[in-house]
Amino acid sequence: MQSGWSVPDSDGTAFTPMVVLELAPDTNEEAIKWLLSRIRDREQNGGVELLLEQTLTGGHDGQKGNPNVFLVGSTLERLLHGAEDVGLFKEFNDGSMRAFTYTNKDNFKDFQGDGDSLLSVAECQYIIKHKLDTLRAKDEANVPGYPKAKLYPGKSIIRRLQSKGILLQVFPLHDKEELKRLSFSWYKKVKFSSSSSFQPLNDIRRYFGEGLALYFGFLEYFTFAMLPMALIGIPYYLWDWEDYDKYVLFAVFNLVWSTVFLEVWKRSSASLAYSWGTLSRKKAFEEPRAGFHGVLGFNPVTGRKEPVYPNSKRQLKIYLLSVPFVLLCLYLSFYIMMIYFDMEHWALALYEVEPNFWTGLFLFVPSIIYAVVIEVLNLLYRYAAEFLTDWENHRLESSYQNHLVLKVLVFNFFNCFASLFYIAFVMQDMVLLRQSLATLLITSQILNQIMEAFLPYWLQRRRNKKAHKRLVKVMGDRELPLPEQAQLESDMSTYLGTFDDYLEQFLLFGYVSLFSCVYPLAAVLVVLNNITEVYSDAFKMCHVFKRPFAEPASNIGVWQLAFETMSVIAVVTNCALIGLSPQMKAYFLESDTQLILLVVCVEHILLAFKFILAFVIPDVPKQIQIKLARLEFESLEVLKKKMRPHLRKSWRPRRAQTLTSEEEEEERHRQPRY
Amino acid sequence: MQSGWSVPDSDGTAFTPMVVLELAPDTNEEAIKWLLSRIRDREQNGGVELLLEQTLTGGHDGQKGNPNVFLVGSTLERLLHGAEDVGLFKEFNDGSMRAFTYTNKDNFKDFQGDGDSLLSVAECQYIIKHKLDTLRAKDEANVPGYPKAKLYPGKSIIRRLQSKGILLQVFPLHDKEELKRLSFSWYKKVKFSSSSSFQPLNDIRRYFGEGLALYFGFLEYFTFAMLPMALIGIPYYLWDWEDYDKYVLFAVFNLVWSTVFLEVWKRSSASLAYSWGTLSRKKAFEEPRAGFHGVLGFNPVTGRKEPVYPNSKRQLKIYLLSVPFVLLCLYLSFYIMMIYFDMEHWALALYEVEPNFWTGLFLFVPSIIYAVVIEVLNLLYRYAAEFLTDWENHRLESSYQNHLVLKVLVFNFFNCFASLFYIAFVMQDMVLLRQSLATLLITSQILNQIMEAFLPYWLQRRRNKKAHKRLVKVMGDRELPLPEQAQLESDMSTYLGTFDDYLEQFLLFGYVSLFSCVYPLAAVLVVLNNITEVYSDAFKMCHVFKRPFAEPASNIGVWQLAFETMSVIAVVTNCALIGLSPQMKAYFLESDTQLILLVVCVEHILLAFKFILAFVIPDVPKQIQIKLARLEFESLEVLKKKMRPHLRKSWRPRRAQTLTSEEEEEERHRQPRY
Repeated sequence: MQSGWSVPDSDGTAFTPMVVLELAPDTNEEAIKWLLSRIRDREQNGGVELLLEQTLTGGHDGQKGNPNVFLVGSTLERLLHGAEDVGLFKEFNDGSMRAFTYTNKDNFKDFQGDGDSLLSVAECQYIIKHKLDTLRAKDEANVPGYPKAKLYPGKSIIRRLQSKGILLQVFPLHDKEELKRLSFSWYKKVKFSSSSSFQPLNDIRRYFGEGLALYFGFLEYFTFAMLPMALIGIPYYLWDWEDYDKYVLFAVFNLVWSTVFLEVWKRSSASLAYSWGTLSRKKAFEEPRAGFHGVLGFNPVTGRKEPVYPNSKRQLKIYLLSVPFVLLCLYLSFYIMMIYFDMEHWALALYEVEPNFWTGLFLFVPSIIYAVVIEVLNLLYRYAAEFLTDWENHRLESSYQNHLVLKVLVFNFFNCFASLFYIAFVMQDMVLLRQSLATLLITSQILNQIMEAFLPYWLQRRRNKKAHKRLVKVMGDRELPLPEQAQLESDMSTYLGTFDDYLEQFLLFGYVSLFSCVYPLAAVLVVLNNITEVYSDAFKMCHVFKRPFAEPASNIGVWQLAFETMSVIAVVTNCALIGLSPQMKAYFLESDTQLILLVVCVEHILLAFKFILAFVIPDVPKQIQIKLARLEFESLEVLKKKMRPHLRKSWRPRRAQTLTSEEEEEERHRQPRY
Repeated sequence: MQSGWSVPDSDGTAFTPMVVLELAPDTNEEAIKWLLSRIRDREQNGGVELLLEQTLTGGHDGQKGNPNVFLVGSTLERLLHGAEDVGLFKEFNDGSMRAFTYTNKDNFKDFQGDGDSLLSVAECQYIIKHKLDTLRAKDEANVPGYPKAKLYPGKSIIRRLQSKGILLQVFPLHDKEELKRLSFSWYKKVKFSSSSSFQPLNDIRRYFGEGLALYFGFLEYFTFAMLPMALIGIPYYLWDWEDYDKYVLFAVFNLVWSTVFLEVWKRSSASLAYSWGTLSRKKAFEEPRAGFHGVLGFNPVTGRKEPVYPNSKRQLKIYLLSVPFVLLCLYLSFYIMMIYFDMEHWALALYEVEPNFWTGLFLFVPSIIYAVVIEVLNLLYRYAAEFLTDWENHRLESSYQNHLVLKVLVFNFFNCFASLFYIAFVMQDMVLLRQSLATLLITSQILNQIMEAFLPYWLQRRRNKKAHKRLVKVMGDRELPLPEQAQLESDMSTYLGTFDDYLEQFLLFGYVSLFSCVYPLAAVLVVLNNITEVYSDAFKMCHVFKRPFAEPASNIGVWQLAFETMSVIAVVTNCALIGLSPQMKAYFLESDTQLILLVVCVEHILLAFKFILAFVIPDVPKQIQIKLARLEFESLEVLKKKMRPHLRKSWRPRRAQTLTSEEEEEERHRQPRY
């Protein structure tokens, strides 16, 4: 948690600011004073004992800056206690990962000297955020100066201030020094490292937290997993466009491979999560999300007063409005698809009447337009889905996320792949399928790269260009002073989480796997896309967006399920495609029935094989299972000893250090009788 | 834990004997003395502080009895401490289930007076068994008097004695009074109780433990779940043998129903397990099974010295011997099936040559012979599977059980259903299928009832007839004296666990679901079978077998998976059967292809629907989820308070007791900004 800056608190303590708290410019003075005193107050009095300092900047670029921007920091002591509160796992002296406790701090490997090196800045920021979130109202009836912003005992003050628009944002500060190091090792250096990963995952995790590090780990893993498919796909593309015999082999390989790599990813992510201490970390009790509203009642779990909202009402909203809305959107998407086919038809007719270069080029236009429309529809639908899911008023962030992901996945899947399914199984036109797949894939990749990285970067640049230029002129190569830095970062866009990034990979996986046997080149395109994706995502995290708070995560959550579902659907589509292929039909000239039965049999065997494989491969590597079991065992033992310390002393076997040859003799036990 | 008997310990303490320890009649005196003193010894000295008394009976029926039979009991104090050690959950004063702790004992609901009523006899016996199992060697190099029975520090003494054949058996005593009450309310009384279950599940659990109670709960639930199928099946049987239209409806209903009821069972068993305190009870650390052998090494988890056996060697054994052996058995079973078909053919030919009553009856003979052969093969294979799995040398009982169940399931499934699959899909003879199914089902039910209940009972009776008669003559209606009772029970057969009972239900479920659309009467037969099964199983538990030790269980484990897998296979077979039906073929006269495609589509939709249904229905009822969450939350809170007791006092919100109208005003929060 080294950082170049330090500012004094009001009582003179110098501290390193880590988090920025931005209140509305017109916030009532009384409320500010109250909030600051509550944050600074000792824990016995219900405060969170953090250090605070107002940035005193007149605003940059001639505009009037917001005077109500505060820098938040903490003493090391408080951070260490906080690490225990949030349940951080750290490496113990014996190499295992254990929940950090303050009293036991000297036994942790990275705790040296005063413990400065134990926590990464991201962890400190996470702890400070946790402390701010748990700042609870005592007996204030409302926020001072805001009679409408009601409070009741135990209510999180920060969430109330946010929901009332008094608190504009809370965000962690970038650390220019560390960021420079990170971005150098991440994407500025071509490396063939000896470690298991090309990206500095541990550094990413130290800077951005586990959630983002897992995303980048998955992105890299997924790209490598596509490599065999891509390498096998190239000769197929170069030499045997129409040889379906080999495509069968290719498809079967793809299906087995996609099952294996998804299972192996589970194991790798468990290893990563173990080494980062999130695998066995207990989830903190989930507070209601900030937007949740309802009649004041009692939480049946905590017994605390909080808004409650009847589940039946939520179910009604879901089934009477959300589900019909999604179906309507699907119908709309289907309708647009039919228009696309009309256009396609029309373009073809034009080409047939007058076949020249321009009408030939024009053949691609409908697909490109359709690809753009798909992206636009996805985007619009995304907003609608967010609005609807908000309106459904879920109590927990996790349940909100699940409903949102489900809505978005269903629509995006349909929107992206419906036309391909239609071409493949209704029109049964394999040439058009290949052409559409290629156009859709390439167009959506290009659009994605533009929307995701270049657009925000360009907007960002335009916004800050003048200000930055002027500042650079003034400061030269020197670091920006802290208040200016905070103001600058406060204007950057907010990173909305890994949702869109995973969604993109999910759709790419669909393009590769669903129709892999008609277009083996898809994997090549995805690999190429993902190589640039790593760089552009890394760049946007470092330079386009505000630093996000670290998000502890032990796996990629619902996305694992989504990818696995896609790979099951892929078995069905590929088997069907192979069954439809003219070569297969040529083999079974006399009887379609036999062909179909064969295809169905193969499909069932493949599906059964997939499920057995997923069941047989353990989700957590043996080595880590043993480590976890050891910890569990030790905690049981400690518990037993604590309960009755006078017992079990003399006879408990000590851990023997060496084996004598006598002890090593082979021991064979007879079978017991029943 | 009331019981009529009490015997004095050597030091004069009167105690209720609960468990019998039977050593070999020729056991070395020195070893006996050592074992008794170790068991009686105080815990500080490595003993387990149990009470012991030798039964002094000259043997009954003129035979010389075994003098080395010991009755084991315990003081109430020790049992309560033991309840804490094994992690029993009991109902707390506030109605929730909590881990029992001795210091907190007065706050548990059933703890009245000196706590006599808190523990059931089954629990006391379980605790005593746990204590005996954890009696560990100190620094003895071997069992006194048995230089070959090596010991090392931390090794369980009881397991070593068992594996060396010195300890013949450990079993809990029946409690005549309670048994009489239990069997009356269980199967002697016709009841239409108001409770959710017809059987006294809570009493069964108190007497036999959770594992058995869950089996009987499942048996009853499964029988009730078959009722709708049976009721719908009767009119099909009576009126429309060949109306496949309605069979389609019937099959679809069956498929959906079987998914729903398996999911709902998960929820009911979670409710039962919660009320019995096994749902959130932590599994104790699993010791190696008694038969496990290997080179002495260190357990990587506990660091204790114990035999280790390389996993690679075990894998080699499995893949080089067990798997080929299973395949060989499957081939043998297939071969026998072909012989059956030859016999069938021959019987039919005989009937066609000379059609009269006797040859007509003779038509059923091959099926009956085949059914008997199947049962015999299953039995023989079962022994082979046990031998092989033993030889694979699994370290944990759970892993041993999993491998055994897998072997037995695969073979039994093939052995029982292969002929039906062959008839249905290779011969496509629906009449023969129906006839074979009926014969197989009925014969196997009759055989099962004989093998399971009547045979052991008859053997038991014959063995004890004389002895019992004489005793009854001497004692009249009075209770048997304790030593005689112990001797009598020691000669009873040992109950080998619920494995065979679940297996039988699994196969019955197969007969009902796999081919439900050709033989709707199967469900009726299964319901009838299961009604007698409940009675015969209850009877055999109470009067045929030794009382088993209670087995804590929170679900039916691997059997849930087995039943679910069967219901997935049933979707495939039923769809295929419907596709093969002449009526369906009549609809699609022109094109088989269309028919098959339709069937495949319907099958995929049903399968997808099944998986979605299984995913959507929560495994634990909401009410119990809340209770579990509350406990989790409280333990987190307690932990926080314990860590720093001076903090978080003044401001923590107290649980408000009433809501004023002012507080009840609707609170609406605005959406927070991102």
